[in-house]
Amino acid sequence: MSSIHPPAGLARRTATLDSSAIRDLLALTARDEIISLAGGLPATDLIPVDRIAAAADAVLRHSDAVQYCETSGHRALRRVIAARETLAREGGTVPVESVVVTHGSQQALTLLAQALIDPGAVVVVDEPAYTGALQVFSIAEAQIESIPITDGGMDVDELEARLLAGLRPAVVHTVANFHNPRGVTMTEARRRRLAALADRYGFWIIEDDPYGEICFDTIESGPPPLPIACHSDRVVRLSSASKILAPTLRVGWFVAPPRVCAAVELLKQGADLCGSSLTQLMAADMLGDTEWLADHLTDLRREYGCRADALTSALSGEFGSALDVSRPAGGMFAWATFRDGTDTTELLAAALAHGVAFVPGSAFVRAATSTSAEYFRHSLRLSFAGSTPEALNEAVRRLSAAHASITRRS
Amino acid sequence: MSSIHPPAGLARRTATLDSSAIRDLLALTARDEIISLAGGLPATDLIPVDRIAAAADAVLRHSDAVQYCETSGHRALRRVIAARETLAREGGTVPVESVVVTHGSQQALTLLAQALIDPGAVVVVDEPAYTGALQVFSIAEAQIESIPITDGGMDVDELEARLLAGLRPAVVHTVANFHNPRGVTMTEARRRRLAALADRYGFWIIEDDPYGEICFDTIESGPPPLPIACHSDRVVRLSSASKILAPTLRVGWFVAPPRVCAAVELLKQGADLCGSSLTQLMAADMLGDTEWLADHLTDLRREYGCRADALTSALSGEFGSALDVSRPAGGMFAWATFRDGTDTTELLAAALAHGVAFVPGSAFVRAATSTSAEYFRHSLRLSFAGSTPEALNEAVRRLSAAHASITRRS
Repeated sequence: MSSIHPPAGLARRTATLDSSAIRDLLALTARDEIISLAGGLPATDLIPVDRIAAAADAVLRHSDAVQYCETSGHRALRRVIAARETLAREGGTVPVESVVVTHGSQQALTLLAQALIDPGAVVVVDEPAYTGALQVFSIAEAQIESIPITDGGMDVDELEARLLAGLRPAVVHTVANFHNPRGVTMTEARRRRLAALADRYGFWIIEDDPYGEICFDTIESGPPPLPIACHSDRVVRLSSASKILAPTLRVGWFVAPPRVCAAVELLKQGADLCGSSLTQLMAADMLGDTEWLADHLTDLRREYGCRADALTSALSGEFGSALDVSRPAGGMFAWATFRDGTDTTELLAAALAHGVAFVPGSAFVRAATSTSAEYFRHSLRLSFAGSTPEALNEAVRRLSAAHASITRRS
Repeated sequence: MSSIHPPAGLARRTATLDSSAIRDLLALTARDEIISLAGGLPATDLIPVDRIAAAADAVLRHSDAVQYCETSGHRALRRVIAARETLAREGGTVPVESVVVTHGSQQALTLLAQALIDPGAVVVVDEPAYTGALQVFSIAEAQIESIPITDGGMDVDELEARLLAGLRPAVVHTVANFHNPRGVTMTEARRRRLAALADRYGFWIIEDDPYGEICFDTIESGPPPLPIACHSDRVVRLSSASKILAPTLRVGWFVAPPRVCAAVELLKQGADLCGSSLTQLMAADMLGDTEWLADHLTDLRREYGCRADALTSALSGEFGSALDVSRPAGGMFAWATFRDGTDTTELLAAALAHGVAFVPGSAFVRAATSTSAEYFRHSLRLSFAGSTPEALNEAVRRLSAAHASITRRS
């Protein structure tokens, strides 16, 4: 009689994903009375529901919207993405064959991890990092190494020093535009150097870019620099329709050299056969409607910019020099660090009692790096995307009250 | 300087998926002049496009149709599935918490393999088997063992003999209703015995049931027996909306004990965060519209039954005793075996030249079992679902001409 559940492998692979104190706390943020700045959801009130309904209606007149789809994605959508990617790279045509559509860009990450990483291989991530990437690389049983994020993005000097000292990553994953959770954008100089290091040391760069289109300051600081993918062939560039159209489409994609596309296509066939023709054709309809999309993105950028302003102004007003926070130039998140010794996991418990939620900084490092967890103990990520300026002001008032309550106590 | 692509693991895991002679031939079936009985697609002309469009329109009036979804599926859909599953089991309420919605049932298979199987673990499959299952278990690096399918489903006597001889599977996968590719249904006695073996030897049964609702002969031979899941708690039962509504929804699901659901939910979060609220709510709308669904299923069963009749009658008429074929009582596939020594891989090449396609029997075993491949050399799978009776008649005439062309030559 065998007892084979749970298998040793699952227990090992999911060890870092198990319920933690933070997870338990965040489970409480769904309560109605809580203003949650914890999630990574785009603003529901800014999702273009009418345009989405029109897209559904239009594409459902064609019978290929209801059948199985090609594994690498519906050709109509791949064409639109290739055209947009060609524009983003300002020259150098991106062929349709180098685009693979996935079930959200999280699936792209998972399949790329399966294609590019053997158990035990080294993967370099940002510190702090996108938690979804940490999760994927943990399940892939990678040896995860972290490189700090500074105001100019991943610290490429530090990476180069580690490479010179013998580090041999299979993959370097970074969010170069409007970082989650740090809010910063990688400089052009660092992009060029990172690309050169990939060529020299033979690793793949996963340039994870869900937020690049949501730039507020095209006049003030200009749009983000050209993609890292412009500077090397060893770059897999990921993006998604979730943040600019709607998460419900579950349309993500990546652009990569043909051998990477072929490997992922094979894995995707096993993983789920294919994506939804319906939601892919809807995404193609909207992304291909350039006039409508330009207007929609203008609205989105303006409104997200207002929300970022509202949040960071309120934080500065309430906390003054006790909190280090800078206004992000795009994306959905602001990162802040207490200078007064406040432990943000402790603050979260108090904040929930006061009706506001955020994610403590220590959630964005893998559990093992205790020194970093120590560092990020005073930091927090706040999402401004999903709340109106009024709600953000109220959230910061509640946070301040929570902060006062634990400061008084100690 | 490291050269890390492709990693050894990927090459090993995908070895059985690489391009084969059959794959190359089947790539030709997409040509317009070919009548393809090769695919596993439901009939496009029977997909209820208007009802699907109405569902999209109805659900897009609610804002929770455009955001991220719960990882285990939208609660509205899980409730509908739990209610349907309770009915299917004729008693014994199935709680919502035991239902997990996946991106098609292929994703359920993949995540279940990750949750239940460590590399090297034994997995028992049907022989012949659903190729998607072979693919998933190969990627999971399972040790795949096959048990023959007979007219009454998986040969449970043979399985028991293997268990007595020391075989210790982690998982037994079977398609109990209207088998793909064999067309047969497992008897009630075998279901009870298989369930008892699972309890005695501690393995999981994956009861893969995409076709159970498509039964033609409710009067003649009755619907299929009760699910295996009625007879043991060690059963994970899979199904899908792809065959009864539309593949484009990418809505599959499984029903399992809570510990299995929890493990898969964790893995799904890493794999793709969640499914599409839009297509899940559309599926809930249609599956929950019991009156409409009953009429739709009646139409589907009648039309698929006509097509099955047309195909098998035409085959008997053209080939007589040279071909062993029986009319399936449901599903989408007929299985046939030449008694005259015809090699069906050889026949496929000729058939394509004559404008008709099918899948040779040897495609449904893993490459390693040469003896079975030898046996299935004379068999073929024909899908009757996607073609009208007229097209099926023409397809069989072409197949007969192809058969004559290679018989004359030899």
